[in-house]
Amino acid sequence: MADITIFGKGNMGQAIGGLMTQGGNQVTYLGHADPVTALGSIVVLAVPYPAALAIAKANVAQLAGKVVVDITNPLDFDTWDGLVVPADSSATAQLAELLPESQVIKAFNTTFAGTLVAKQVGGTAPTKVMTAGDSAEAKQALTTALAGSDVTVIDAGALKRARELEAYGFLQMTLAANDKISWNGGFAVLK
Amino acid sequence: MADITIFGKGNMGQAIGGLMTQGGNQVTYLGHADPVTALGSIVVLAVPYPAALAIAKANVAQLAGKVVVDITNPLDFDTWDGLVVPADSSATAQLAELLPESQVIKAFNTTFAGTLVAKQVGGTAPTKVMTAGDSAEAKQALTTALAGSDVTVIDAGALKRARELEAYGFLQMTLAANDKISWNGGFAVLK
Repeated sequence: MADITIFGKGNMGQAIGGLMTQGGNQVTYLGHADPVTALGSIVVLAVPYPAALAIAKANVAQLAGKVVVDITNPLDFDTWDGLVVPADSSATAQLAELLPESQVIKAFNTTFAGTLVAKQVGGTAPTKVMTAGDSAEAKQALTTALAGSDVTVIDAGALKRARELEAYGFLQMTLAANDKISWNGGFAVLK
Repeated sequence: MADITIFGKGNMGQAIGGLMTQGGNQVTYLGHADPVTALGSIVVLAVPYPAALAIAKANVAQLAGKVVVDITNPLDFDTWDGLVVPADSSATAQLAELLPESQVIKAFNTTFAGTLVAKQVGGTAPTKVMTAGDSAEAKQALTTALAGSDVTVIDAGALKRARELEAYGFLQMTLAANDKISWNGGFAVLK
């Protein structure tokens, strides 16, 4: 059982919080205007990428020693035709640079809120959460926190793989926005 | 019904050829040492990326006016830790630059040979082929050629999206190589 702090009370924050609660963890939500006081051992930044950057910059000391989970898909939402991070980097890598004392990992950017809540992709395949990061401990902490939630975690590798996870998430969002898939469907990971 | 030429007689070439044959097309294979004579209206480069580059460079005139299908995942196979194409580009974009008179599209890099043959991902989800390219006609020609094969095509957008398709394919290969998924499973696209 872990103390989890979730920045953001939107669809994604609530879906992740629901799974964490089901996993037996203590979940606290922080909204936009809430003061940042004591944070849990796992901090989920369930906000858009620019807001995640701002939270990281403003809370370097508070986030030190924490597992910080970046869920963002850093789309250019004006064009829906690219990401706003450098082509050879990722949102997670950018956040990790800002937070050298934190264990920053990617997770939850490859699953829509609807598939986290339903625990199924397209009504048939079990929802799985892919994670990437350089701290095996941090990825294990996330895996442990989700044990008991019926959603399993797949370790997709080192922090460098966050770039591919973001491409995957971006692609999935463009397909949904173009009605090629639904927001309750998308990409499933099957053994 | 189209005339299809497939460069490469490996697992992927054979799997794609099988679908094309089932779709009622005439399929011809070209091996490494075969002379390049008359090519079909759709040419599939079912070879590794360096070989695809070499074929493109050697056959610019022969490939003019053709739909050229790039199936490659341009991994750095020494490290399995990155792609050999520039971070802001893709294998397909590089090939399209070499072949300005051809209609170059990406396809089949997001499906393993095993899931093309079985027509299922992980034994449960229907196999779907994602494609990307700037020619709607070329993508439609591929879709038409596969009609009747039980494998459907999803148009993932413009040539720029080949970059994300390659990230997706790369990620999928690393997961299979690390036994997180099997070579008959992987990523499925569900509505």
